[in-house]
Amino acid sequence: MTISDFALIDRAVAEAAEARPIWAQSGATVRSQLLRGLADVLEANADELIGLADRETGLGEARLKGEIARTAYQLRGFASEVDAGVPFRRIDDAAVEGLPPAGRPRLTRVRVPLGPVAMFSASNFPFAFSVLGGDTASALAAGCPVVVKAHSGHPQLSRAVFDLARGVIARQQLPAGVLTMVESASRAGGGHLVQHPDIAAVAFTGSYQGGKALWKLANERRHPIPFFGELGSVNPLVALPNALAKDPDGLAKALAGSITLGCGQFCTSPGVIVLLDDPASDRFVASLGTALKPIQTHRMLTDGIRSGFEKAAAAIARANDVQALFEPAVDGAGPAPQLFQVSAERFIADERLRDEMFGPAAIVVRARSLNEATEALAAIGGTLTATLWGVEEPNEANRALVRVAETIAGRVLFAGVPTGVAVTHAQHHGGPWPASTAPSTTSVGYAALERFLRPVALQDAPAWVLEGKQG
Amino acid sequence: MTISDFALIDRAVAEAAEARPIWAQSGATVRSQLLRGLADVLEANADELIGLADRETGLGEARLKGEIARTAYQLRGFASEVDAGVPFRRIDDAAVEGLPPAGRPRLTRVRVPLGPVAMFSASNFPFAFSVLGGDTASALAAGCPVVVKAHSGHPQLSRAVFDLARGVIARQQLPAGVLTMVESASRAGGGHLVQHPDIAAVAFTGSYQGGKALWKLANERRHPIPFFGELGSVNPLVALPNALAKDPDGLAKALAGSITLGCGQFCTSPGVIVLLDDPASDRFVASLGTALKPIQTHRMLTDGIRSGFEKAAAAIARANDVQALFEPAVDGAGPAPQLFQVSAERFIADERLRDEMFGPAAIVVRARSLNEATEALAAIGGTLTATLWGVEEPNEANRALVRVAETIAGRVLFAGVPTGVAVTHAQHHGGPWPASTAPSTTSVGYAALERFLRPVALQDAPAWVLEGKQG
Repeated sequence: MTISDFALIDRAVAEAAEARPIWAQSGATVRSQLLRGLADVLEANADELIGLADRETGLGEARLKGEIARTAYQLRGFASEVDAGVPFRRIDDAAVEGLPPAGRPRLTRVRVPLGPVAMFSASNFPFAFSVLGGDTASALAAGCPVVVKAHSGHPQLSRAVFDLARGVIARQQLPAGVLTMVESASRAGGGHLVQHPDIAAVAFTGSYQGGKALWKLANERRHPIPFFGELGSVNPLVALPNALAKDPDGLAKALAGSITLGCGQFCTSPGVIVLLDDPASDRFVASLGTALKPIQTHRMLTDGIRSGFEKAAAAIARANDVQALFEPAVDGAGPAPQLFQVSAERFIADERLRDEMFGPAAIVVRARSLNEATEALAAIGGTLTATLWGVEEPNEANRALVRVAETIAGRVLFAGVPTGVAVTHAQHHGGPWPASTAPSTTSVGYAALERFLRPVALQDAPAWVLEGKQG
Repeated sequence: MTISDFALIDRAVAEAAEARPIWAQSGATVRSQLLRGLADVLEANADELIGLADRETGLGEARLKGEIARTAYQLRGFASEVDAGVPFRRIDDAAVEGLPPAGRPRLTRVRVPLGPVAMFSASNFPFAFSVLGGDTASALAAGCPVVVKAHSGHPQLSRAVFDLARGVIARQQLPAGVLTMVESASRAGGGHLVQHPDIAAVAFTGSYQGGKALWKLANERRHPIPFFGELGSVNPLVALPNALAKDPDGLAKALAGSITLGCGQFCTSPGVIVLLDDPASDRFVASLGTALKPIQTHRMLTDGIRSGFEKAAAAIARANDVQALFEPAVDGAGPAPQLFQVSAERFIADERLRDEMFGPAAIVVRARSLNEATEALAAIGGTLTATLWGVEEPNEANRALVRVAETIAGRVLFAGVPTGVAVTHAQHHGGPWPASTAPSTTSVGYAALERFLRPVALQDAPAWVLEGKQG
């Protein structure tokens, strides 16, 4: 990190700070027009951007095409939220004559944008959680300028998307500081950004280590600021024998596909498979191994992610009483899938077995009873998703399992696999630590924009102050 | 701190953990009946409780009577929220056929209670922010058991209220662990509670130092948990000449009353008065001094608060270029009111002048222009309230002032004084650090219960899982 890198960060933040009041006061039409313009420009340049993205990330054309569609969809989705007036909603309490507690002044609850948001791009979603991804879209919709910290895994793509966005901003005659970008790859640069006095909030998607370090720096400011970080998740799946018996091969294939999707580089990749001791489970484990072993993964996003995966998988492999369920095939472009197995007793006793392996691997946890399976799930503590197969019956054991799943996860699935996160109003992509540093907030779905608004109660406000609030 | 103190805390938390699933699954009727029962028992024993409270806090009968009324009012208010189904609300997204991003599974967003809440009572609201205060009422309404950390400033009152509450809980045949209490006065005891693995969230109202220390401990857990802390606030008031000219003596009297209300021991006590250089301001300062100087305060809540106030006021008094506007009268039962004055330039330059004096004192900040007054306001950074007198005209300077007030405060008043916080739906009692460690949340008003609920998206849930959600 050189002084000039800090100076570039300071310049980007200064631009954002200058745009702050203008963007905070912008009306619905101005905001939604920008969001739709950004969606359009992505789609209009999809071919070129996909080529760039594939060279830098190796994620493949089909996936990247889908990701551009999703990114445009969520930009337009937030535009619709803005048009519907979501950021401008008020709650009015009329004055009530008389003494407290019933007597009261007139109060109006509005929400104000937090201010410039430092947005740390993710490596694994070069469109949907990068320069114009969900965090940027929701922060812009809320009225906050965004300072993008580009991810070093796809620098050229980041620059290309940023240049296109800047073009839209200029054509719409908006202040350039609505969206700025810094490219520093160093920890010091990220820390400088998070601690900049004009940064009002942080959005982060990435590794536990990197995210926790930035979260600590945000908390060490003289005035700590909100930090919305998604730091990691093991995404347990509990599959009961009654579900497995119906279609062991089909379910195994679906699960193997989910474990290896994108070379396992999804935050919702299922990493822990909890099974009861039962012949149907044995049959399923065999099918899962058969389905998983031959899958050829593509190369991982960065060398650091690859070595991190290998380290994490090796640590699981050499832990006491952990069994490798098959000899991994020779690596292709990406690492070979791996599957481990351990008893629920050991899994509960050894917290290192609950660490995330970010890549194409999972650990099967064998429980002697549904009660023990529930305890294994509880031991996980915090996760983005928990999937339960086979809890159709409302008996006491299933109730307990659902209760624990709801306690540790932000999303609970009762069918299917956890990869694939729909952008809707009901979606919640968060969860207790370490899934999220702010577990009541979501980074996917329309509720994401609420992160960047702060309520303010206006007491006895003149009419002009309230008029200004309706966008 | 002895080992047996830790053991008592562990026992209280264990009781709460045992009650957790039962209370989380309790329906609206059960919860609202408890909240109303608690309100009733407070009122039925008001005379005895007020006597106890006055002996321990010195706040006087009239104030304490009003505070019991408020506490019962907010318990019943949260009961009504529960009856209206607020904690049980869901958002349903039907499945949509087809591929993502538009195609999606069925998703239902529900909210689950966080789990046992460690609630640190405030010294200055022995009823309304103590054992059965707003934090307890909102957490219980949300479905969370509460472990009360009693305040050492009113131990007998805390025990008496707790015993009454336990009686209600027993008569309603609810698990005792719905409400437990620990009395440790030590930092170590508070830290042990905040770091207990079965504690899921913390609610705290108190000093900056104490609150920040507990917040850090919560963040140092292996799994950090939400910490809703109100740590301090200087509550600036900007009074423009046009407002002051109309009724200088009346406004000065109202402000002097607000500064000394409860001996200045309110979190919303106005501590910074920003005035423009103008004859109307000079006239107002003279009136304020005349109104303030002779006010006899009652004794402060604890010796620690008194010495803390004297230290803070002395630090302001001896700071460069600060002028004492009158010689304080001889102390009565409480400390004599004090009023200081400094230039806006110095106030902006020296952050120590922006420290809270928790007690009957304020500092007048003299600005040479409205622009400089706005800068002085901005320098404050985070506060529960900001009051603006005289911004009835929608001109550019007033717009900037309102914008800055909204940026630094959780509540902006356009008339009256900041002490007195109505319990309503629109209320927001929070604000950027240090006013709140979680500035999007409020500790007063009905939105307070949202702090203790966490969203969970249920994907393709069987009917029985959703039925269970409707209370």
